[in-house]
Amino acid sequence: MSDIARADGRTNDQLRPITIERGWSEQAEGSALISFGRTKVLCTASFTNGVPRWLNGKGRGWVTAEYAMLPRSTNERMDREAVKGKIGGRTHEISRLIGRSLRAVIDTKALGENTIVIDCDVLQADGGTRTAAITGAYVALADAIEWARGKKFISQKASPLTDSVSAVSVGIIDGVPMLDLAYVEDVRAETDMNVVVTGGGSFVEVQGTAEGAPFDRRELDSLLDLAVGGAASLKAIQFEALGR
Amino acid sequence: MSDIARADGRTNDQLRPITIERGWSEQAEGSALISFGRTKVLCTASFTNGVPRWLNGKGRGWVTAEYAMLPRSTNERMDREAVKGKIGGRTHEISRLIGRSLRAVIDTKALGENTIVIDCDVLQADGGTRTAAITGAYVALADAIEWARGKKFISQKASPLTDSVSAVSVGIIDGVPMLDLAYVEDVRAETDMNVVVTGGGSFVEVQGTAEGAPFDRRELDSLLDLAVGGAASLKAIQFEALGR
Amino acid sequence: MSDIARADGRTNDQLRPITIERGWSEQAEGSALISFGRTKVLCTASFTNGVPRWLNGKGRGWVTAEYAMLPRSTNERMDREAVKGKIGGRTHEISRLIGRSLRAVIDTKALGENTIVIDCDVLQADGGTRTAAITGAYVALADAIEWARGKKFISQKASPLTDSVSAVSVGIIDGVPMLDLAYVEDVRAETDMNVVVTGGGSFVEVQGTAEGAPFDRRELDSLLDLAVGGAASLKAIQFEALGR
Amino acid sequence: MSDIARADGRTNDQLRPITIERGWSEQAEGSALISFGRTKVLCTASFTNGVPRWLNGKGRGWVTAEYAMLPRSTNERMDREAVKGKIGGRTHEISRLIGRSLRAVIDTKALGENTIVIDCDVLQADGGTRTAAITGAYVALADAIEWARGKKFISQKASPLTDSVSAVSVGIIDGVPMLDLAYVEDVRAETDMNVVVTGGGSFVEVQGTAEGAPFDRRELDSLLDLAVGGAASLKAIQFEALGR
Amino acid sequence: MSDIARADGRTNDQLRPITIERGWSEQAEGSALISFGRTKVLCTASFTNGVPRWLNGKGRGWVTAEYAMLPRSTNERMDREAVKGKIGGRTHEISRLIGRSLRAVIDTKALGENTIVIDCDVLQADGGTRTAAITGAYVALADAIEWARGKKFISQKASPLTDSVSAVSVGIIDGVPMLDLAYVEDVRAETDMNVVVTGGGSFVEVQGTAEGAPFDRRELDSLLDLAVGGAASLKAIQFEALGR
Amino acid sequence: MSDIARADGRTNDQLRPITIERGWSEQAEGSALISFGRTKVLCTASFTNGVPRWLNGKGRGWVTAEYAMLPRSTNERMDREAVKGKIGGRTHEISRLIGRSLRAVIDTKALGENTIVIDCDVLQADGGTRTAAITGAYVALADAIEWARGKKFISQKASPLTDSVSAVSVGIIDGVPMLDLAYVEDVRAETDMNVVVTGGGSFVEVQGTAEGAPFDRRELDSLLDLAVGGAASLKAIQFEALGR
Repeated sequence: MSDIARADGRTNDQLRPITIERGWSEQAEGSALISFGRTKVLCTASFTNGVPRWLNGKGRGWVTAEYAMLPRSTNERMDREAVKGKIGGRTHEISRLIGRSLRAVIDTKALGENTIVIDCDVLQADGGTRTAAITGAYVALADAIEWARGKKFISQKASPLTDSVSAVSVGIIDGVPMLDLAYVEDVRAETDMNVVVTGGGSFVEVQGTAEGAPFDRRELDSLLDLAVGGAASLKAIQFEALGR
Repeated sequence: MSDIARADGRTNDQLRPITIERGWSEQAEGSALISFGRTKVLCTASFTNGVPRWLNGKGRGWVTAEYAMLPRSTNERMDREAVKGKIGGRTHEISRLIGRSLRAVIDTKALGENTIVIDCDVLQADGGTRTAAITGAYVALADAIEWARGKKFISQKASPLTDSVSAVSVGIIDGVPMLDLAYVEDVRAETDMNVVVTGGGSFVEVQGTAEGAPFDRRELDSLLDLAVGGAASLKAIQFEALGR
Repeated sequence: MSDIARADGRTNDQLRPITIERGWSEQAEGSALISFGRTKVLCTASFTNGVPRWLNGKGRGWVTAEYAMLPRSTNERMDREAVKGKIGGRTHEISRLIGRSLRAVIDTKALGENTIVIDCDVLQADGGTRTAAITGAYVALADAIEWARGKKFISQKASPLTDSVSAVSVGIIDGVPMLDLAYVEDVRAETDMNVVVTGGGSFVEVQGTAEGAPFDRRELDSLLDLAVGGAASLKAIQFEALGR
Repeated sequence: MSDIARADGRTNDQLRPITIERGWSEQAEGSALISFGRTKVLCTASFTNGVPRWLNGKGRGWVTAEYAMLPRSTNERMDREAVKGKIGGRTHEISRLIGRSLRAVIDTKALGENTIVIDCDVLQADGGTRTAAITGAYVALADAIEWARGKKFISQKASPLTDSVSAVSVGIIDGVPMLDLAYVEDVRAETDMNVVVTGGGSFVEVQGTAEGAPFDRRELDSLLDLAVGGAASLKAIQFEALGR
Repeated sequence: MSDIARADGRTNDQLRPITIERGWSEQAEGSALISFGRTKVLCTASFTNGVPRWLNGKGRGWVTAEYAMLPRSTNERMDREAVKGKIGGRTHEISRLIGRSLRAVIDTKALGENTIVIDCDVLQADGGTRTAAITGAYVALADAIEWARGKKFISQKASPLTDSVSAVSVGIIDGVPMLDLAYVEDVRAETDMNVVVTGGGSFVEVQGTAEGAPFDRRELDSLLDLAVGGAASLKAIQFEALGR
Repeated sequence: MSDIARADGRTNDQLRPITIERGWSEQAEGSALISFGRTKVLCTASFTNGVPRWLNGKGRGWVTAEYAMLPRSTNERMDREAVKGKIGGRTHEISRLIGRSLRAVIDTKALGENTIVIDCDVLQADGGTRTAAITGAYVALADAIEWARGKKFISQKASPLTDSVSAVSVGIIDGVPMLDLAYVEDVRAETDMNVVVTGGGSFVEVQGTAEGAPFDRRELDSLLDLAVGGAASLKAIQFEALGR
């Protein structure tokens, strides 16, 4: 991989500094304040007994997520969605992505008829908010599950978590594939891809979009290589935060 | 590629019967009623002079799309989003996908300060509505552009269309990769992927989701192979409809 | 009745070409794609067991309707009501009119505690969309009822349908009463009236509005004569479509 | 006309006691608190210079209306539409009816580029709220126009009012046509009709609905006779209130 | 207290003319049309058996309030909140204040599992609408409770009303504290305070706001003195209206 | 002042531990993460040139505020207001209170035609969120103003800030007045009061509410004494954070 200087001095296959403050919230059953460089996302996991009506009596649990940005998390203030009276398309899309990513590593039978809602609120945004959210959400989710197992709300012996999960962005800038784009890189990228990867190294989601020129198969392969490498590093940081 | 019987007798790499009724609407500047098997989507292109305020005076045009389903396009009636008073997350997501896909083959400078809105309304749904919508939308868009060139609303000599674009779904069912999933296949798929491909064979969007088990690199490669083949067939059908 | 040439060559008491494609939708329990000239409305009937809460346990069923226009059914694109987040007054008014018209020919006791929702979506609009909707909705409703009788969801021997129903517009243009106005005629009409008539020839609704000068009793009488004649023709076309 | 006893002792062709308190509001340019028996509607007319954007520069004015009911105007409290976050279909329909009825007696050229909004708020409801609203709205409108002529906001010599307008309900109960239905009569009526009539005796709106059995031509004629008679009485009361 | 002339000739510690028309509405269980000078508020009390879900089975009742202004109650017409599709902050705030004020004099145990909703609709506004609303609401509430006791819907011997309650505004204008501000005074006031006082002379709410310069402790004391005096007069007027 | 043990060992006139992390956000023109014990509020100030339309050309600026709680800031997760599609009454009320409090110490003429929006997002809630928000908002506002003066966006020599402002809650528990209530205290309080005080010791807002028994003049006086003392301490902490 070639080594053009990036604005923050990283190599093309290098993550930004990642930190995870586990248990940041004293109210939630699980929580993490995660940073991908200047991007900061507060992830909380709320555990409740029971499931939504449409799942009633099926012996399975439910995990879902909601993503939002504080109005001044970004460089220019955005209007609040609550004030506008509706959730925007991008917000919906990312909330759904986070929920699907977490459900990919949950055995809902083993969870029992319980619900976990993960809230991912972006306190400061500098690119990669959805990937930081997924990566932090896993830590909050893992803690909420341990809490519920301690309280015997989850009766199965085995943890409902079947694997870990993390996510990272990759993109092509001036023809060069790069890992974990900061905002200034993201706006210049010709192709932008978010990849959600399990601890075992398989894909949960691959979402690649040509913002400029379409991309070919070879470029796609390079991006996937970078993402898989980044996800392995994120897994290590998650495990360290969780004290495993 | 192995040849398990599919419910409708297709081979794994075979599209459903595709038909395009170009010019179905007498009101729109361009239109197409497209069928992917029992899935039917009415695509209309509305051309107007001028651009949204945020693009004013930049010498560039705009192409956007809105997707919706009729309440009884599906097997069970859904509530209307207009009655519920808000657009759902899935609708938002697909509308944005269609818009991005079309913009990937438009030179907005060459379009001039004009706007084209593509409406994709699903009249009957049997899986693959978003891919049918993109494929039909391209035909409606191409006709609206020709109409505007005829009217001299687009002054550039070269067409703003830089390529064609189509989309197809692929998925893994019982471990076997398959092309263009019907609804009964879609609900059984472990992995579901929508791929948007230009006439030149490059990728505009790759959106793969593990609904069940995560997928590995080899499976991803098989799915992309199938999608590229399907897109080539769709391109031929588009060109025939357009009389090229 | 005098015989001024109309734009499409019709006489003043002549309907536009009417066609009904019964069973257009493969998903709904009853459906019809009806055309009044260039006006095309897709009507689907959705049958479900049970009734809205306020009718619970009263031994009666419910029939209701929802009307909507595709954004580019008209000559200039309209914003989607789902995007605006609310249903407009005209849409509400027409939905209520269709529902009342259908309930006028239904014995809700004989229907039992079942609900039928009729969706009337205007695919192309050229005047008379509400009258086409009512006329097509009757065909979809009749088929949904036969379907439910076949399934024994309706236990009464006699059909809950007590009569047929159709609707037609009439108006006064340059002082001359005319039947079934196309859009260009509708905008010029001094008085515009929609009349809903049973197969037996009685009135379900009479809605006359002076758009320009008020109308007198003699003009009202002429309009009603025209409408009753038009409704008799529509009844014959409905019965032919239903194979009676 | 036969003479069955009505609950309040009226004959079939008799209006309820009608009162009009002109100038009830000290804030509005014109106002009237009108009673049709126990039905009380406060009508205010708000005059402003200028017109809605779509009428700009056409040299014509605009008159529109909004109707609403106080939550406890009725026998059982209704939820507020502001709290529900949307206007219901019935409210929309009546607001549009009032606006059309008033515009039928306005020469918008003579009004100049000015706007009058009529608010009709039902303080107490006992049937016939929309007909009381139209009848009272005319008085408020007439006063707002005189106010504007006095202020020289309307420069034309001739008044923009071309005629007066009033409205009354009629219906068939147990086969007998009756004038000005109170609520207990309205719920029993087989057919219910609202008729808007100019001072000159022509029709602006005729809206007849079969709530039970459809109605025939002879019944329709009887209802129109009753309505025309009632409107003549209302005109006299309006003129008395206006001191003409 | 100094005696500057007020626009309407009142002394600084004098209320405007207060009138209460008890039982104005024939539909509600209790009602009052209250005037504070030109400010007129219609207060209705709606009694229903049962409580909101969150109070179910606790043996306690509920009293709540909704406040609204007619669009032309003010000098310039305001848009309807129902048309805007949402309740504004000021409306919310006042509704909550009225509800809290009334609950302060209700023994919810003695009320039993019943709900009373008080609607306060401002028909004409000239300052002090919230204080007039609270003062009139008490009269409507008292009558609804007597009605329910007569019907034996409230079984306790003692009335659930533990005291009476009224409210009045006070403010500082040009450094001088004044009672019961009319609109022209309200807009000039440096400090504006609404005080809710029980019949026994204790405070339920004290809401003081510096619109201009902040106020000091001595000014606060003067305002409270004025308010307590005004509330005593209002109590006498309430009792007279109630025939005590 | 008597010295009953409070749950956290404080005396009745003692604040919780207060911390202010000034400049917490790298995106906003001014920011502060403030803690009142376990209550944490992130306050950001967004400066923009220009004013809302209704202030255009008046030579004055505007300061406003928006308050919100993260869904899991509380002990039980609340639904997001953006998802519900509307802002609740309490949220509206607090946003307005914060805005008024800040405007009380701003000379809007000196601010020039500029707008500052303060966002106060509660990350963790344990009582007193509105008073923490006001106290932190002042710090964010002061920094945004210094930033704008540095950029010469504010041309006046004198700072538009005329004083500092802070807020604190007080309440009566078991008859004893206490300062700065934590959540467990707040729910038990008979009277709850929020007091906004300038650096100079005058009142901007006094909002006292009897949750249980009404309060008398003597109790009100004790509460005001406590609040004034608490505000003096908060002012010192604000000044220390600002490095004055």
